Amino acid sequence: MPGVPPARYAYLGPEGTFTEAALRQVPAADRGEHVPCASVDAALEAVRAGEVDAAMVPIENSVEGGVSATLDALAAGDPLMVVREVLVPVTFVLAARPGTRLDDVAVVSSHPHAQAQCRHWLSAALPKARYVPAVSTAAAAAALTGTATEGSPDAALCAPIAAQRYRLDVLAEAVEDNTGAVTRFVLVGRPAPPPPPTGADKTTLVVHLPEDHAGALLELLEQFAAHGVNLTRIESRPVGSTLGQYSFSIDCEGHIGDERVAEALMGLHRVTPHVRFVGSYPRADGVQPQVSRATTDAAFTEARAWLDRLRDGRL
Amino acid sequence: MPGVPPARYAYLGPEGTFTEAALRQVPAADRGEHVPCASVDAALEAVRAGEVDAAMVPIENSVEGGVSATLDALAAGDPLMVVREVLVPVTFVLAARPGTRLDDVAVVSSHPHAQAQCRHWLSAALPKARYVPAVSTAAAAAALTGTATEGSPDAALCAPIAAQRYRLDVLAEAVEDNTGAVTRFVLVGRPAPPPPPTGADKTTLVVHLPEDHAGALLELLEQFAAHGVNLTRIESRPVGSTLGQYSFSIDCEGHIGDERVAEALMGLHRVTPHVRFVGSYPRADGVQPQVSRATTDAAFTEARAWLDRLRDGRL
Amino acid sequence: MPGVPPARYAYLGPEGTFTEAALRQVPAADRGEHVPCASVDAALEAVRAGEVDAAMVPIENSVEGGVSATLDALAAGDPLMVVREVLVPVTFVLAARPGTRLDDVAVVSSHPHAQAQCRHWLSAALPKARYVPAVSTAAAAAALTGTATEGSPDAALCAPIAAQRYRLDVLAEAVEDNTGAVTRFVLVGRPAPPPPPTGADKTTLVVHLPEDHAGALLELLEQFAAHGVNLTRIESRPVGSTLGQYSFSIDCEGHIGDERVAEALMGLHRVTPHVRFVGSYPRADGVQPQVSRATTDAAFTEARAWLDRLRDGRL
Amino acid sequence: MPGVPPARYAYLGPEGTFTEAALRQVPAADRGEHVPCASVDAALEAVRAGEVDAAMVPIENSVEGGVSATLDALAAGDPLMVVREVLVPVTFVLAARPGTRLDDVAVVSSHPHAQAQCRHWLSAALPKARYVPAVSTAAAAAALTGTATEGSPDAALCAPIAAQRYRLDVLAEAVEDNTGAVTRFVLVGRPAPPPPPTGADKTTLVVHLPEDHAGALLELLEQFAAHGVNLTRIESRPVGSTLGQYSFSIDCEGHIGDERVAEALMGLHRVTPHVRFVGSYPRADGVQPQVSRATTDAAFTEARAWLDRLRDGRL
Repeated sequence: MPGVPPARYAYLGPEGTFTEAALRQVPAADRGEHVPCASVDAALEAVRAGEVDAAMVPIENSVEGGVSATLDALAAGDPLMVVREVLVPVTFVLAARPGTRLDDVAVVSSHPHAQAQCRHWLSAALPKARYVPAVSTAAAAAALTGTATEGSPDAALCAPIAAQRYRLDVLAEAVEDNTGAVTRFVLVGRPAPPPPPTGADKTTLVVHLPEDHAGALLELLEQFAAHGVNLTRIESRPVGSTLGQYSFSIDCEGHIGDERVAEALMGLHRVTPHVRFVGSYPRADGVQPQVSRATTDAAFTEARAWLDRLRDGRL
Repeated sequence: MPGVPPARYAYLGPEGTFTEAALRQVPAADRGEHVPCASVDAALEAVRAGEVDAAMVPIENSVEGGVSATLDALAAGDPLMVVREVLVPVTFVLAARPGTRLDDVAVVSSHPHAQAQCRHWLSAALPKARYVPAVSTAAAAAALTGTATEGSPDAALCAPIAAQRYRLDVLAEAVEDNTGAVTRFVLVGRPAPPPPPTGADKTTLVVHLPEDHAGALLELLEQFAAHGVNLTRIESRPVGSTLGQYSFSIDCEGHIGDERVAEALMGLHRVTPHVRFVGSYPRADGVQPQVSRATTDAAFTEARAWLDRLRDGRL
Repeated sequence: MPGVPPARYAYLGPEGTFTEAALRQVPAADRGEHVPCASVDAALEAVRAGEVDAAMVPIENSVEGGVSATLDALAAGDPLMVVREVLVPVTFVLAARPGTRLDDVAVVSSHPHAQAQCRHWLSAALPKARYVPAVSTAAAAAALTGTATEGSPDAALCAPIAAQRYRLDVLAEAVEDNTGAVTRFVLVGRPAPPPPPTGADKTTLVVHLPEDHAGALLELLEQFAAHGVNLTRIESRPVGSTLGQYSFSIDCEGHIGDERVAEALMGLHRVTPHVRFVGSYPRADGVQPQVSRATTDAAFTEARAWLDRLRDGRL
Repeated sequence: MPGVPPARYAYLGPEGTFTEAALRQVPAADRGEHVPCASVDAALEAVRAGEVDAAMVPIENSVEGGVSATLDALAAGDPLMVVREVLVPVTFVLAARPGTRLDDVAVVSSHPHAQAQCRHWLSAALPKARYVPAVSTAAAAAALTGTATEGSPDAALCAPIAAQRYRLDVLAEAVEDNTGAVTRFVLVGRPAPPPPPTGADKTTLVVHLPEDHAGALLELLEQFAAHGVNLTRIESRPVGSTLGQYSFSIDCEGHIGDERVAEALMGLHRVTPHVRFVGSYPRADGVQPQVSRATTDAAFTEARAWLDRLRDGRL
């Protein structure tokens, strides 16, 4: 985010979720005001309406949903721009009221997806515990701040940030069955010049296919391949209710300021009915693309100079 | 499902969800025994373990999640097979205790995603109503069968099937903001010969990319294009925790019994490190693919006969 | 040829060949001085040495050879530039000394290739005539201007221009077995700015393949396809004596001043080790290319403007 | 050539040319009867008519022409089959009447193309010698067997075989300016089962393009690339007199008995209006293709077995 940091940030709430953890990873946002929203749509609409300066929403592999909603909200309506991506490890803690011991836990609450991801740990560590579903992992944690009643949950499977926020004791860490997973979040603002290239950037696009035939997707991808631009994500999305029409949500390596990306984008703009640029921004993992000698900025500049010589007759 | 219909069907529960509605659309399954599961993983594990004969799970555009979980569960572990797809309209009703009038509704409950999809209707029809989140749309409906207490929900936004199941009054139908959306579900069984081709089929695959370079995806897609096979869905999924390695979950038109699909599959098998066949099954929408003259079964048969003549020297 | 017409033109001799006929079709050249050369190499070397201003040489389907020599001479050595193409119908006359009647003809002379192309007519019209080979069709005609001796040829199969030049009687016209064939010639000069685009142009290139693998040629052609540039001729030529290394002599539709051609050329320059531009010039047949909406100059200009807007944040 | 060696061989004459040298390289043909023909067409017609068993004709880089004629004659008319290729070094000798010394040579004769290829040597070794054109290099040699007259040639630039045949003295060897060049010849018979694969084979085809658009050639080549088949020669040829319609004369690595070649051929047969198989035969240079693991016969067999398992439900 260039310039003065925005003061207000929406995010997919409630408080204490992985999305809030993502927002707190961005230094400027960590100092700003935070507005939890009930849905991705609501968070992005708040940006469009100018009520907030940016919104943090999940875009890939989320525990608590939101991904399709994010892709669809970025693909339609007034343009928005991704300015940053954030990776958050998908790790759960078992949190309980202060003073609770693991042996005391008889009822565990959490969002069903979180429970599913910790099933093996639960059956090994708490074989007799009963499970009570909650609307979100954060809601399960928040509920522990109220008065305990007969049969109400003793502990919650939640994000580390939720245990912190609600001052709960962490009885066990990293209780997820598969470690190493991450959820990818994006910070979304209103249209503006993209942040400058860093050498390790991503560009997000939505492209509508020209027609539904066996080679249409291939033609689209040839624009990337012909210019040496690697894709890191592609997802087809049905367009409207028309059967057989598709758009593609695409992440590619590189920045709109890179020649090879610019050429691929211009190629797409020429050959497909609609291309929406959703942003160029630094990769959270800092991985630099392998750019072949044929597709460096220098190669494009040199080719242009060569062409200009030919047009002048200097063979 | 060929042969004797399976007796037991798992599905992503709880009762009264869109997934149960999907299951009830399959005549054989409608007559079978139903086992609601807390997660897609649990439902598919029940199939693998032989506890049920098949499972109904959402695979695209679900209201209440499960899509990434479904794709990932089909991509790894013991092989499973999609044998049928079902489309369910995403339509919500406002359901309440018998005798309730719309004017009486002060508190509405539902899953947050459902609430987000009915926001416009809610603000027009029930501008003063308070919203209380629920774990699922079905849970919101089920809660209305208990005793009403001060401040407890009066109505639920839920699937039509939930109102039926819990004998609730439907105060309003089709209250979703965007009409026409559908969720796609698949019925998943253990490996077996696929159902016979119908002329309007789909095939689902998981393909691992050979290497992460700009043209790798293109090489993969050329196998489809070279054999005239159209894709209807493609989604990249990161493989394990290795950065930059991807698999692709792909639906294509046609049946493994069609020559053009068989050739594309064999081509993929040769050029990529791993191809998992997840099933060939009738399309729920009955749409027949446009097959060019060059890729009919007859064209493949004729080409083979021509080649055999050449090899015999009969030019 | 823009500007003052060149005074001296070399051509593949001798006088009276199809190549001289090609040269005479160019108005400026028709008025200039003509220098017959014994080989294509000699004619092109005369251009390089500055001894002549341009040279007319056959490049496709020639009766009397020269095509491979032309392609190879344009591909190596100091750069030359094709500035014009000329099509000459491949039609033969039977020419004889003034006063000769068809019945008098006992011995026919010509180049063996010409004789081969008129075999059916010869066996029908002159079944008893003996054939005597000549070095060229023009030499056969020229020989008739000398004194007739016992057994020397009475008639020659030659180009119409040879009959004119040597003041011979034409006993029969269009005696070739296959009518409608044409030979393509090019006028070659030293490097200079190409003639301006006419809307019906051709561009000639020599491209060296990056490496000898199954997809290398495909990568090359994708640069044309990605930019909507159609090929009208492609011929592989072995490079030097190294086995398995190839260059390609290519004619494509369009002019280096067209955006789509410029982009394809720059793409080739980036991805292949060597591209030699041999000229952009009006097509002799005046056929305009079918340019799709995606590859007009306007489409490229519009795509560039769109990109500039995106880079400024004006989505 | 399987079976009993043919007794009669046509070739592009006259005697003493490089084509006769090519024919003598084939052991079976060396022992057979030889029929010189005045043109490639005549030689191939003799095969079609059953007058000879096979014909040797030049197909690439010939000194004395015949290449376009060969390509066109193989592309149309009754089918013929290439059964063998032969490479002959393009090397010239200066041959003269027995007893002649180099200093005695005042007049040199040869075909103009041969003279052009020895120009540098001639101007260094015989700066004062006069050049007299001949119909072929062999004719120049043959003429030296007649009586020498005032001003008639003293020596000929010709193939080594011509000096042998006409019992001439070789005054100098390898007098060509560029050493290392070879001409490629093919032995052409009537349709029959191709010779068995040797592991180092070539296949020759004529393919008509489906339509004249920017991507048509690409679609054709994708059939080769998709099956890992490398091209060693491609030449576009205009079809008939229709402007803008092309056929392609193509040599590719491998044998019609190889799975990857068979698949590429069947693919071409399906997607293009016309494919003519002209033969699979051992490469004269013995170079084996680099076959990727994905396109070995074993890979195709394994893929077929995998597909059969899938169709049986054995995932």
